Amino acid sequence: MYYRFVPHWPYYSPYVEGEWLSWRSAVESDGVSRLPEQRLSFVLVHGSWADAHFWDGVAAVLRSQGHTVHAPEYAGHGTDPNKNVTHAMITKSVVDYIMRLNLRDIVLVGHSFGGTVIQKVAEQIPDRIKRLVFWDAFVLKDGGSLADELPPPTRQGFEQLRAGSKDDTILLPFPLFRDLFVNTATLEQAKHFYTSVRPEPAKPLFEKLDLKVFYTLPTPKSYVYFYQDNVLPQGEGFGWNPHMSSRLGVFRLIVGDGDHFTDTRTRPAMLARKLYEAGRD
Amino acid sequence: MYYRFVPHWPYYSPYVEGEWLSWRSAVESDGVSRLPEQRLSFVLVHGSWADAHFWDGVAAVLRSQGHTVHAPEYAGHGTDPNKNVTHAMITKSVVDYIMRLNLRDIVLVGHSFGGTVIQKVAEQIPDRIKRLVFWDAFVLKDGGSLADELPPPTRQGFEQLRAGSKDDTILLPFPLFRDLFVNTATLEQAKHFYTSVRPEPAKPLFEKLDLKVFYTLPTPKSYVYFYQDNVLPQGEGFGWNPHMSSRLGVFRLIVGDGDHFTDTRTRPAMLARKLYEAGRD
Amino acid sequence: MYYRFVPHWPYYSPYVEGEWLSWRSAVESDGVSRLPEQRLSFVLVHGSWADAHFWDGVAAVLRSQGHTVHAPEYAGHGTDPNKNVTHAMITKSVVDYIMRLNLRDIVLVGHSFGGTVIQKVAEQIPDRIKRLVFWDAFVLKDGGSLADELPPPTRQGFEQLRAGSKDDTILLPFPLFRDLFVNTATLEQAKHFYTSVRPEPAKPLFEKLDLKVFYTLPTPKSYVYFYQDNVLPQGEGFGWNPHMSSRLGVFRLIVGDGDHFTDTRTRPAMLARKLYEAGRD
Repeated sequence: MYYRFVPHWPYYSPYVEGEWLSWRSAVESDGVSRLPEQRLSFVLVHGSWADAHFWDGVAAVLRSQGHTVHAPEYAGHGTDPNKNVTHAMITKSVVDYIMRLNLRDIVLVGHSFGGTVIQKVAEQIPDRIKRLVFWDAFVLKDGGSLADELPPPTRQGFEQLRAGSKDDTILLPFPLFRDLFVNTATLEQAKHFYTSVRPEPAKPLFEKLDLKVFYTLPTPKSYVYFYQDNVLPQGEGFGWNPHMSSRLGVFRLIVGDGDHFTDTRTRPAMLARKLYEAGRD
Repeated sequence: MYYRFVPHWPYYSPYVEGEWLSWRSAVESDGVSRLPEQRLSFVLVHGSWADAHFWDGVAAVLRSQGHTVHAPEYAGHGTDPNKNVTHAMITKSVVDYIMRLNLRDIVLVGHSFGGTVIQKVAEQIPDRIKRLVFWDAFVLKDGGSLADELPPPTRQGFEQLRAGSKDDTILLPFPLFRDLFVNTATLEQAKHFYTSVRPEPAKPLFEKLDLKVFYTLPTPKSYVYFYQDNVLPQGEGFGWNPHMSSRLGVFRLIVGDGDHFTDTRTRPAMLARKLYEAGRD
Repeated sequence: MYYRFVPHWPYYSPYVEGEWLSWRSAVESDGVSRLPEQRLSFVLVHGSWADAHFWDGVAAVLRSQGHTVHAPEYAGHGTDPNKNVTHAMITKSVVDYIMRLNLRDIVLVGHSFGGTVIQKVAEQIPDRIKRLVFWDAFVLKDGGSLADELPPPTRQGFEQLRAGSKDDTILLPFPLFRDLFVNTATLEQAKHFYTSVRPEPAKPLFEKLDLKVFYTLPTPKSYVYFYQDNVLPQGEGFGWNPHMSSRLGVFRLIVGDGDHFTDTRTRPAMLARKLYEAGRD
């Protein structure tokens, strides 16, 4: 099960051995232009107020590096006119996509609300998943909902926006989107981003999920945390890391300096690098 | 109120569209030498153990980029011989300065103790403020004092230093200043910095502030957090972010790698960039 | 006791004074190739699942910059065939080493479990220590053990691994090592690293330590925190910084972007720079 032990340390020095030198220079570079040492099969699951095009930039980078990338759309999003969807319907969209294309050994990535989706997908088709990667994503407790993870004022704000809609959706006001989702972007970038934001079906955000099976899965897990992501306050009982990440038990942590949305468009190569570091063996 | 929705995603690719390419390259550069896309009017409010010259470096950078910058001195600091001042006197200094120059649409920045000052200034002249920016600054609760936010041993140390002074000031010992305020500086830089540190009027640090009006203001707010700033322990009920920042409700978070004082002199362009990112629309 | 006050601020501008300009450029560079302004005498104490060769890369960098570096081996590690050791035996190894070479004015660095060792060494020979540097290291409370600082599932895992051994050691499974200790490394790097990992004597990890003397020592202290280090969850009652670091009282914080082990081999110059920033006066 484990790698064999070599009884004696090799007594190498990183200053004379070329192998170690090349390691160092590879890591100390900006790390975005190198070809990866392993080719992976990514399935990317977006979050709320987004659709599958959210991944266009990062998918293009990953494909240019030899990886296979799929970014399935799910119920209630993209061109789907029906906004009256359940979490189970969303999960089914992703499971059906993976089954239809007969994908195997996948690195299944979830962003934001997408974290709750990959939790449920993993319960249904664990044998097809090589590793789960949560990127600033919700990791719900068994029996919990996304709304449970929001600070009370945010939750109340969401409930008001929901109550004010005609079709049980939540429309994110621009000022909120600008300061919480794309805080590192310019105003022009923020406005451009916002043109693709559409009302989000509210119900799946408030559904309590049975996740008993998820918490029995031995699937390896990673968490990518961007430290300028402030969609949730980071600490004191809330937030991505360590609050929700630590529910994964043993997981691989990868940290970057981005925010919740901006880097998908402004630094897709940086984001692709972080997802690769999270997804490789 | 909101930006209009564009019904279809533009289906751009960051790899063929020049606009997105230029975004990416702009953000992926070091981000300090570019001219900003918006010109702002900054009013910079320093903290304790500092005076208005604290801002000399960053003000020079911001002005060179086309911004208007004011750095008012306040009661008990700079050349003011009177150290027997109250928080209200300090607030009045800043309000009077803004009124005298008839400044409008300002980005009001507070550093450290200066956070409590801009909280009170904002209560008095909210219509002149475009956005509040707290940089590793205290955000007090209604009825709270700065001293309330100090871990008990630090608070006791401050009380002893205060009791040992003849004029109710606190003289920061060099070893404390070196390790807590300028931890990333060289020893020579730390010593040079310390030549400008003078005893701080103690009373305003212990005054309880009525902040009921502040917590009703709809003014947009940002928080700049430097993660090597260790003036306060960062977590477990204390610290800048998220402990005090989250009191702002919805706020824009900008994170940098500096400490509490050093970067004003060693990396003013980096600091100016972060304040700009926090202050722009 | 303090540096003298200079009554007037020098009114320099960082844009006209060469001295300040050179500061800025020195700090804004990558900071790894410059010669340091001070020469230090380092004693480096490794942690669990490592031996003194852990420091080979960083020691070579520090020596090339004019520092003196010692990396003592301690009981139960390296070529010592006896794994039945106590924490006191480990402490004695380091104390004896320092006494035998008659080292003085040392910067004593502890990594991980090595933090508990330098706590005890400092109690015995405080007059030889200029500064204590904890790098992602345990800082135990008086009467506490390392195991007390582990989240319950990790502690239980350790107890199971311990119970399954024939000689009261803990053998770290490769998947755990790969995701928790070398999370930013490539798989090849992780495997190579793992060839030098040997079973760790378990007893010292569970011993309760009397640290009353440690908490009376006025020795200056620094904490180096790498924010991709996820050996322990970082927050909510656990972790390196601020959970254990804040036990040091006033300390100098230095933050880097590494993980628990990887940078010793891939970026020894970066690590050496951080240890220098933590260790200098």
